[in-house]
Amino acid sequence: MRLALLLTGDELMAGDIVDSNSSMIAQAIQTYGWRVNCKSTIGDDLSLLISEIERLSAQHDVLIINGGLGPTVDDLTAEALAKACHVKLVEHSEALAHLQRWCARLQIPLNAANYKQAVLPEHCEIIHNPIGSAVGFSAQLNQCLIMCTPGVPRELQPMLEQTIIPALAKQFSGEAIDTLRLVAFGLGESTLQEMIDKQLPDWPDAISLGFRASNPTVEIKLTIRNQQFLPLRTIWQEKIITLLGEHYLGTEGCSLAAATINACQAAGKTVVTAESCSGGMIASQLTQIAGSSAVFLGGMVTYANTMKQSILAVPANAIEKYGAVSEAVVKAMAEGALAKSGADMVIAVTGIAGPDGGSDEKPVGSVWLCWGEKDALQTAYLLIPGNRQQFQQWLTAMSLDLLRRTAQGTRQTPTYLQRRRHPSL
Amino acid sequence: MRLALLLTGDELMAGDIVDSNSSMIAQAIQTYGWRVNCKSTIGDDLSLLISEIERLSAQHDVLIINGGLGPTVDDLTAEALAKACHVKLVEHSEALAHLQRWCARLQIPLNAANYKQAVLPEHCEIIHNPIGSAVGFSAQLNQCLIMCTPGVPRELQPMLEQTIIPALAKQFSGEAIDTLRLVAFGLGESTLQEMIDKQLPDWPDAISLGFRASNPTVEIKLTIRNQQFLPLRTIWQEKIITLLGEHYLGTEGCSLAAATINACQAAGKTVVTAESCSGGMIASQLTQIAGSSAVFLGGMVTYANTMKQSILAVPANAIEKYGAVSEAVVKAMAEGALAKSGADMVIAVTGIAGPDGGSDEKPVGSVWLCWGEKDALQTAYLLIPGNRQQFQQWLTAMSLDLLRRTAQGTRQTPTYLQRRRHPSL
Repeated sequence: MRLALLLTGDELMAGDIVDSNSSMIAQAIQTYGWRVNCKSTIGDDLSLLISEIERLSAQHDVLIINGGLGPTVDDLTAEALAKACHVKLVEHSEALAHLQRWCARLQIPLNAANYKQAVLPEHCEIIHNPIGSAVGFSAQLNQCLIMCTPGVPRELQPMLEQTIIPALAKQFSGEAIDTLRLVAFGLGESTLQEMIDKQLPDWPDAISLGFRASNPTVEIKLTIRNQQFLPLRTIWQEKIITLLGEHYLGTEGCSLAAATINACQAAGKTVVTAESCSGGMIASQLTQIAGSSAVFLGGMVTYANTMKQSILAVPANAIEKYGAVSEAVVKAMAEGALAKSGADMVIAVTGIAGPDGGSDEKPVGSVWLCWGEKDALQTAYLLIPGNRQQFQQWLTAMSLDLLRRTAQGTRQTPTYLQRRRHPSL
Repeated sequence: MRLALLLTGDELMAGDIVDSNSSMIAQAIQTYGWRVNCKSTIGDDLSLLISEIERLSAQHDVLIINGGLGPTVDDLTAEALAKACHVKLVEHSEALAHLQRWCARLQIPLNAANYKQAVLPEHCEIIHNPIGSAVGFSAQLNQCLIMCTPGVPRELQPMLEQTIIPALAKQFSGEAIDTLRLVAFGLGESTLQEMIDKQLPDWPDAISLGFRASNPTVEIKLTIRNQQFLPLRTIWQEKIITLLGEHYLGTEGCSLAAATINACQAAGKTVVTAESCSGGMIASQLTQIAGSSAVFLGGMVTYANTMKQSILAVPANAIEKYGAVSEAVVKAMAEGALAKSGADMVIAVTGIAGPDGGSDEKPVGSVWLCWGEKDALQTAYLLIPGNRQQFQQWLTAMSLDLLRRTAQGTRQTPTYLQRRRHPSL
């Protein structure tokens, strides 16, 4: 099956928005082993739209058009498709009923602008939109099935899942491809490839392997194209999870914060954070996970030295003697946070995010970490390269990972603590 | 000038990466009033590449090709352009010298894969790449100027600025367009349009206006295409800033957090945060701004009720009597944070982010806020629609804005506090 994508909208051409819909469509059809053969993006230009529909439909079996279904004058998809198919635009009763229900739900009148969304190419079929006002619609031109979809990502997604992919699977008797994504942290793509080559030399050809760095984690993709090899999956999935060991976070979409919350829940341990240079990012990422309140008691963002003293009871003379970025202070922060909260585990960080505040002895990027359980606190010093944003993001990633490892009782020193140690230490 | 963009790479078609290069190119050429008329994206397919080069070059004055310049076998741009132009691929001395310098700098040998990047279409001109190994190159086909550029964004950017845009400006005698972007919060696009229509009815035609919602802020774009009208800019910029009033944050790229830090610095006021349901996001956004340490003393993320008591001295009986999401508790949190930190200003929030934890009386999305200076604390109750992520993001946006308003001494109640009040109150 040859499939083309036609995206339309001036905002796409002006660079005001970055297109994420074509990525969503490509990943959705990939499940069946199909790919996008050609993608064209144009502005809100009726004659250009018509000629692109004619050109792409002549060369492909399926054409998905995305965008231009809205109520305003620059939404031209219905008109362009009608012209390309040489049919009239007519009121479509199913679309009108959908619009009436949608307006009733929002308690707004059905105005002329919205009514436009019920006027569609004659004989087209409706693609239900469970969320927005604009229904999708499909028609046949030449030998090509054309499907028109809305540009709003959260409306496109359910239409793809519920209608478009099943329709394509039926018409083109697609066979589902089995894809599994595993998420890891602390290993690079090339290291992973090497580990697998060396330790799993009999990796089966039937399962193709892919890697993708999606900072700060890395994704390992296992793809099985032939259904008869599906039974192999469980075995090799387990082998790779064993190989990943302490670096394994979970399956697709598992973030570092989610893995940390899961590990804390599994261990029945509560956690507290004491942050200086990360400024609350560790607490914020933990609390973005639904259900985090079961294990996350709270956190202190002690940015000013006075706050380190008043909230975490860090001794003033430790700050004076060793400086705020020191092992003595980070340990006192961790101990103070445990004492104040009664939590089982802690992560404390103090460092220099930059761009200012660095010195020869403690350059921008320096940070002291302290983590662990009450009577087993560990400390480390790191130098994190990059700008302020990268510093905070990597420090947060490592901090979450150290909490996860603590909850899981992992004893090995993570690679990132070996590599990033300050050369002078 | 009619300009087309041809993007190439299997990774773009598979949806593994989201294309941001075309947005970068579109915004760069916009400065001269040009736009991308047509954009085509295809995989690593030689015959398709050749036919797209032929098709697009026949219809446009300029064709920018992006991607496919790398050292591997699936990088096909040079070969495709040579075939389309009916010329040979030859070793290009300037490209080879560039590669040799690049390898010397990295102290790696010039291998066969890299050498491929010096073999280019005969008679093409080099576009210098100040960062990576792959030079760009340009050639003329039909009446069209074709420029080939690398897919790595940080390599593309300097090539655009230093070579491509100046070359286009020279050949197509482009005139620079003046664009100014202003950022506001708390007003929708349609409200803004109405305000301007009503209160600035003599808005000059020479300055075109555009709006863009970039949640949570909104951007107002003033564009002057004709240099002779440039002197008008300062006058109308001032008028629109006056019109925006308390909603105005700053010029292009100014975030809510940056505006808040700026306002605190201007007022010489320090700030502390006391967060429950926002989980540290307010502190995190403030501390992402370089220089925030001058005004941000710290924050407490008191997720568990015991933390509200131990860190912020919220009376246990207030939590018991009114619940953790109550005016009494949020006020005690704010007072506790001020007392502990000695800060001038505070924002405290306590609410239900969901998906669980709601009740009929206090549904998911309920939140109490308390903000202001020590002896002038204000409180408000809101019901924020949406999921956990949207709840935290909007709550954080409003909290930052309330701090900014406090620092600026703004007296008006913001519109978002009027609109989102719980219906039962």
